[in-house]
Order: sequence, then C-alpha cells, then structure tokens
Amino acid sequence: MKKFHKQSTSALEPKNQQLIIYGRHAVLSALKNPKRKIQKLLISAENKSEIEKAAPSIPFTIIDKKDFAKFLPEDAVHQGFALYCSRLISYDVMDLIEMAENKNRCCILILDQVTDPQNIGAIIRSCAAFEALGLIVQDKNSPLESGAMDKAAAGTIEFVPIARVTNLSRAIETLKENGFWVMGMDGYAETTIDKINKDGKIAIVMGSEGKGMRRLVQENCDSSVKLPISPNVESLNVSTAAAITLYELSKK
Amino acid sequence: MKKFHKQSTSALEPKNQQLIIYGRHAVLSALKNPKRKIQKLLISAENKSEIEKAAPSIPFTIIDKKDFAKFLPEDAVHQGFALYCSRLISYDVMDLIEMAENKNRCCILILDQVTDPQNIGAIIRSCAAFEALGLIVQDKNSPLESGAMDKAAAGTIEFVPIARVTNLSRAIETLKENGFWVMGMDGYAETTIDKINKDGKIAIVMGSEGKGMRRLVQENCDSSVKLPISPNVESLNVSTAAAITLYELSKK
Repeated sequence: MKKFHKQSTSALEPKNQQLIIYGRHAVLSALKNPKRKIQKLLISAENKSEIEKAAPSIPFTIIDKKDFAKFLPEDAVHQGFALYCSRLISYDVMDLIEMAENKNRCCILILDQVTDPQNIGAIIRSCAAFEALGLIVQDKNSPLESGAMDKAAAGTIEFVPIARVTNLSRAIETLKENGFWVMGMDGYAETTIDKINKDGKIAIVMGSEGKGMRRLVQENCDSSVKLPISPNVESLNVSTAAAITLYELSKK
Repeated sequence: MKKFHKQSTSALEPKNQQLIIYGRHAVLSALKNPKRKIQKLLISAENKSEIEKAAPSIPFTIIDKKDFAKFLPEDAVHQGFALYCSRLISYDVMDLIEMAENKNRCCILILDQVTDPQNIGAIIRSCAAFEALGLIVQDKNSPLESGAMDKAAAGTIEFVPIARVTNLSRAIETLKENGFWVMGMDGYAETTIDKINKDGKIAIVMGSEGKGMRRLVQENCDSSVKLPISPNVESLNVSTAAAITLYELSKK
C-alpha cells in the first residue's frame, strides 16, 4: 500500500489546485480521501443527516438548493452536494510501473488527445470497475480534473491512479522497457481485442474520437488492436470503447 | 427487407413529430433515410461541398455559424449542420419479433425508466455497433427522439428499430411467448454476462442508474444477470453497461 500512495510532486502540477466537486457519489468519495485538502462543504438541508453519518468530522454549511447555481455550471446535477477542495496530485509513469511490479497480469490505459471531461470521467469509472492499474494522459492536451469529470467518474477518481505526462511517446517507451506490451486501438487493425493474449502487462492507447491517435504515438506501439463492431458503424464513443476494452482485458 | 420497414402507426406517436437534428454524422445519416420528412436544412458555408456531395437533391440554406445558437441548445456541438425534420415512427414489439423470425441468435435491449437522452443515444449507437435487433422503451417514461439523443447516436438511430410500448411488462410477456429468453440486469444476480448461453433469442432489460428496474418488470424476467465489476464500484453508467452487454452477446 505504501507504493500506492507514492506520488510525484513534479512541475506538471496545475498552478490552480482548487476545484469544486459536485454530486452525491463524487463528494462523498472525495470526503473519504485523505489526500484531498478540504476547503468548504456546502449541502442542501435534506442531505444533513447523510453527511453527518458519512463524514462526521467535516464541517458543512447548509444552503438553499437554488443557490448552488451561483457557483456551479447551470446544468450541473449537484444533488445538493458541493465541495471546494484541492485537485488530486498526478502520479508518475514510474509509480504505475512500480505498482505493476509483482503482478502477472495488469492493464494501463493511455489516452491521446481525449479532451472531453465527461468522457475522461466515464473512462476513470470503467478503470475502477475493471481494476485497471491506472490511466496515463498527456498533460498539455488533456483537461485538468474538474467537477464535470469527477461527476462522470462517480467517486472513482479517488482511487484510480492518473499520471499526467509531458511526452506520451516517452511514457510508452518507458512502459515497453519495463515489460509492458503496448497496443494502439485502431479501427483498421487486423486483430480484435477478444483474440489477444491477455496475460502479462498490457497498456492500451486510445486516441480521440474522429482524430484517433497521433501518428508518432501509434508508431511507438508494439501492435494494434480493434473492437469487433459492425461495418455499418464507423466508430464508438471513446468512453464506450474504453469500457469494452477494459472489460475484455479484465476477463479471466 | 420488407418486414424491416413495416411500422406501426399506433396511438403512441408523439403529437409533435418535428425535431431539429444537429451534428455532422446525425444530419448526414438522417438525410439518407427515406423515412424522414425533411423540412429545412441549414449548414455553415464550409460544409457546402460536403452536403452537395452527400445529399445532392436536398436544398439547403447557408447561415452564419453563430446563428445556430438561436435555435439550438447553447452547448450543442452542431459542427455547422442542422436539420428540421420529422421524428422517426415507433416500431411495434411484433415488428421486432417478425424480424427475429429466421434468426438462430439475436438480441433485443429493453430500457426501463432510462430518461437521459444522451444515454439513450449512446445505447442506440451500441445497438448498431453490435447488431442488436432493436430497442424497446416504455413510452411514458422515456424521452422522445431529440437532437441531443440523435447527436449521441451519431447517425445510428436511422437504422436501429425502436419500439415505444405502453406497458413494458406486457412487451416482455409477448417476447417470452415468442421464444425470447428475457434477462434482467441486476447487480445482485449470481450469473455474470460472459457465462450465459448466448444462443437463441435473448432480450436484456436494463433499469435506470440508481433506481434499477421496477419490481414488476424484474419479476417478469426469466432470469437475472450482472456484469463482473469490482466490488469497489457500485455500478456503471447505464450506457456503458449496455455497451458491454451488447458486445458480450454479439461474440461468436
């Protein structure tokens, strides 16, 4: 467990480390995470007893439900929970490699240019559901942790290690040097995900919907793989494709 | 193919049959569907040659990109495409049963109280990707076809048959009488989806996230089934769960 908690304090950390998390699952999970610096918890009156039970030591302020709209996005489904707190600190690729050390089998997901926070949140939730080791994103083209991302992750961002790296190709090289087989998801690949050897350490690279992986990233992969979808359908949403991939790789 | 096009003209049809579809894939697919009554096509100037190639017989009006916001939701990712047209007409459960007639193996997805249009759109896209026979929803608790739904379906709503029924339990009965094995998705089920017999005609019922299936609907199922997710994660988003289920059932 000690290894699990080791984190980088690299120069990649956002200057603005504060965010507002909203929604029941997202807020309740964040309150249980000792790595979060809690600044302010706002709830609606009907959530009082739930918060007192779930997080008895955290002070809170009760506000009117309609007042959440003053500091949250207009369409935010907050369910009467909002938490001002610190962003989670990024892991290093080496942290993930260390976590994989004694595993015969594990999977890391790498996102290239996926920019929609809700897609990323949904992918984090699938990483948790199918026990992926962690997620790697490129710092400069990936959105910072946000309320929308955490809402879509439904509390799972608290325990899925995420590494924000400067250079994705270099991260892939490091994984390969450390025993990972790196596969790029590509609609034109010959092999489908259900046919690959699932033993060992695997990293899967997924590009953004539409644009796909960048060429240099793709060239760095050991092989490519696709999902077996109908020829009538061009592609799947990236979070759907990630979920199916992680499900397939988690199967015994 | 004739059977495929047979449709009900039941009393369930929405009074308001008009909608605005937006986004490249959604609009281009709708234009190719002879069942749509096209009213008005609006595009931005840069899409002119694309439209002239894809739908040469359809008249269009070029408008300024910023003017799309006047008639679309504020955050709509329209990509310079908007189409005023008719809603698709609902299928009957018997239409789906007829389509299944000569199949040794097929799958229908049933949604109970799934209300988010984007989730439903994403589910339609997965139905298309994994060649499900069709989708059944309960008319009174399921949103009508909308621009947001069609955008999430990325054009696939044009060829996934959807039946809006008055009574979901009765629809399930009808499917059972016609040789379908009906399974309810339930986190507490003993069997995981990868372990079931995938031969024959299968219908899968999925409830809304949080609330799940209604008790009466669940009691009507032949058996229940779950996804093999980590005990640390309470559930998956319904569209993610549907995608994985349809993927698994489509496997040879």
